[in-house]
Amino acid sequence: MFLSKSLIPILKNIPSEAKIKSHQLMLRTGMIKQSSAGIYSWLPLGFKVMKKIESIVREEQDNIGVQEILMPTIQSSEIWKESGRYNDYGEEMLRIKDRQNREMLYGPTNEELVTEIFRNSIKSYKSLPQLVYHIQWKFRDELRPRFGVMRCREFYMKDAYSFDVDMDEAIYSYNKFFLSYLKTFKRLELSAIPMAADTGPIGGNLSHEFIIIAETGESKIYTDKKIFDVDYSETKISKDSLSSLRNKYDTFYAVTDEKFNKKEFDNKVIEENKLITKGIEVGHIFYFGDKYSKTMNASVDNKGKKEYVKMGSYGVGVSRLVAAIIEAKYDDKIELMKWPINIAPYHCVILPQINKNDKSNLEKSINIYNKLKSKNIDCIIDDTDETLSSKVKKFNLIGIPYQIIIGKNSGQNNFEFGGVGENLSVYNVEKIENIILEELKN
Amino acid sequence: MFLSKSLIPILKNIPSEAKIKSHQLMLRTGMIKQSSAGIYSWLPLGFKVMKKIESIVREEQDNIGVQEILMPTIQSSEIWKESGRYNDYGEEMLRIKDRQNREMLYGPTNEELVTEIFRNSIKSYKSLPQLVYHIQWKFRDELRPRFGVMRCREFYMKDAYSFDVDMDEAIYSYNKFFLSYLKTFKRLELSAIPMAADTGPIGGNLSHEFIIIAETGESKIYTDKKIFDVDYSETKISKDSLSSLRNKYDTFYAVTDEKFNKKEFDNKVIEENKLITKGIEVGHIFYFGDKYSKTMNASVDNKGKKEYVKMGSYGVGVSRLVAAIIEAKYDDKIELMKWPINIAPYHCVILPQINKNDKSNLEKSINIYNKLKSKNIDCIIDDTDETLSSKVKKFNLIGIPYQIIIGKNSGQNNFEFGGVGENLSVYNVEKIENIILEELKN
Repeated sequence: MFLSKSLIPILKNIPSEAKIKSHQLMLRTGMIKQSSAGIYSWLPLGFKVMKKIESIVREEQDNIGVQEILMPTIQSSEIWKESGRYNDYGEEMLRIKDRQNREMLYGPTNEELVTEIFRNSIKSYKSLPQLVYHIQWKFRDELRPRFGVMRCREFYMKDAYSFDVDMDEAIYSYNKFFLSYLKTFKRLELSAIPMAADTGPIGGNLSHEFIIIAETGESKIYTDKKIFDVDYSETKISKDSLSSLRNKYDTFYAVTDEKFNKKEFDNKVIEENKLITKGIEVGHIFYFGDKYSKTMNASVDNKGKKEYVKMGSYGVGVSRLVAAIIEAKYDDKIELMKWPINIAPYHCVILPQINKNDKSNLEKSINIYNKLKSKNIDCIIDDTDETLSSKVKKFNLIGIPYQIIIGKNSGQNNFEFGGVGENLSVYNVEKIENIILEELKN
Repeated sequence: MFLSKSLIPILKNIPSEAKIKSHQLMLRTGMIKQSSAGIYSWLPLGFKVMKKIESIVREEQDNIGVQEILMPTIQSSEIWKESGRYNDYGEEMLRIKDRQNREMLYGPTNEELVTEIFRNSIKSYKSLPQLVYHIQWKFRDELRPRFGVMRCREFYMKDAYSFDVDMDEAIYSYNKFFLSYLKTFKRLELSAIPMAADTGPIGGNLSHEFIIIAETGESKIYTDKKIFDVDYSETKISKDSLSSLRNKYDTFYAVTDEKFNKKEFDNKVIEENKLITKGIEVGHIFYFGDKYSKTMNASVDNKGKKEYVKMGSYGVGVSRLVAAIIEAKYDDKIELMKWPINIAPYHCVILPQINKNDKSNLEKSINIYNKLKSKNIDCIIDDTDETLSSKVKKFNLIGIPYQIIIGKNSGQNNFEFGGVGENLSVYNVEKIENIILEELKN
């Protein structure tokens, strides 16, 4: 309720180790605190944003019928030896010996473990498709962790896996996730472009990266602007509808520099629609067939015939998304951030000017707080003795979408109110309430 | 929606490695699956229960004004060397070397890390009290992990920490958690007894264990039955009210065998009120003063004076609670489990008798499912071709609190309905709906 009692350690200066704006903002506003190289604690402000993103990711998985499970962080090396990846994975895998000297590891990904669960649980084609996901911490021992939670070592991810009886069904599962990701990123107010991708170390033969545009992104991207106009609002969870959506996207050129071919770009995209910029990967989907099911013997009985299941995997970087959204939304030139209201740490901040021996503005703040709280509008009051202008500056950085200012321009029941960084109007509490509730509905 | 499409691998027999009834039930009903010694994956049925328990634990923390944060699983050894516990902790600490050969560890507890966060963030007594919690995976490398998730290696816990300016304030914080735990366990339909406890390896001078009665418990307990009658429904979050509640509890004898003293027991408890039984620890609260703040230099400015903060820690084993509730609620003699409805994996199961070439009962099930779903009643349909009696037996074990049976005794709009293991009545859907909604309200 009160900023003075909250664990929100605001820094006055930009920490020198932070090179990109999301890292700078997250440290300055006390969203995170580094505990060791590439490993962070999430303080209340950052934690709230991450949890709200997690909820949206979860809802959109549930909406396409994926079952939630939870696999542990520490895995046995045995299944990785079975798949053949134990030696291949290299130093990014954090290898551990337990007290019995058993070889363990901190999961960098979960294809092996989920395949082992599947092969012990599902026996018949009648139980397919099986779509499962989990949201869990992963560890990759990056040589040079950097950019805050954008490229850290311990990170939070949603990983989903699909198991189908044949490729046709597997592509149907793949396409469900394709749609689900478009919807997920849209709810986060991100324009994500699905780009045909290389399949990399996981291997396989069909893959899309979901990339959002951000000048500070690590990947260079080449795309046809028209791809933003593809409409998926009418797409249904049916094979035909999803496949026609995929076809629509496939007609537009959209690749990262790994796959860039200038001739093809020039041929397929007219000059005015060419978009060459940078982006950040926020999701990745793969179809890799029987790559793991065959080596690990995960099969079903398909009317008397043994069938290795066809698998896909589908990841969204939940902790990374917090930073990615800042990269997309934060204007560091004017030091102004605005969180989408559905993932903002608070809906509204109340900024009273507090004079010595006069607590009337603080009392007004508490009244407003209680009124808005009764409507499920979540506020915080800056009860410190800083000046109003310094409070506004601080909260322009924190990015809570609405501000109520209680100073010399406010009356008994009317207060200055506006979106962060926008012009203020004088409204009563009921009007303020309606504006915020209206935006929350969307 | 359909059991046949769910990842709920039911085992026909009791797995030989499972010695206690919660472990047996969790494996038989496919709630968990062991991935390596003392490390488990949570499949949908177990996951849902654990998540609902987590929500209740979270709400009761929020209700006393604790701020949620999240600390990482992997910690640096440096802070543990500062506190002096790096060598003391022994082999239960999972020690790790990363690729740069730095000494890391998988957090078995978080006093050091949270103290480090505090000392970097909070400077003034004006920002106290600071109460924070996190719900995160922990690892203790048990020599002999056993009893399923009751004594495993990777486990899920809520840990809270309090920071206060002096002991009087710290005891106030301690008492808030005391009340919060009573409320938490009550919502889980558990009778938890707070027992004065030894302070063990964490050290300190005030501590309570919260123990629930279960014949299979690991701790022997000696208590006055009257302790169950203490009423905390009127207790308020104020120093006086909380302190008077603590006093009420303190008048009753209640200890584990570690602290048992026969003479004292005989003196303080009349024969008919003596209760000697076994119990399971589900929560633990500690006050340990400046034990960590002094060694790690965590202080605040208290009106010009440097004051080491007084700390407490407060744990609830979230994953362990799933097993503890089964120990308390599962009657293994008649193979009957009933989950409290607010943490049940589903509210109701629909069991149609399905005959070859006659899908009418399945269609009825789907209709009922949709009607109940529209009222936010969460159901699952057992669409397998097993006999009705075998379905009932299976779901008596799974413990979903209500069953709807669609067989020869059901009409077009009337179905057999009842609590799991109870007598059935014939009701229409509206009546069924009302009964379930009524129970959900409580």
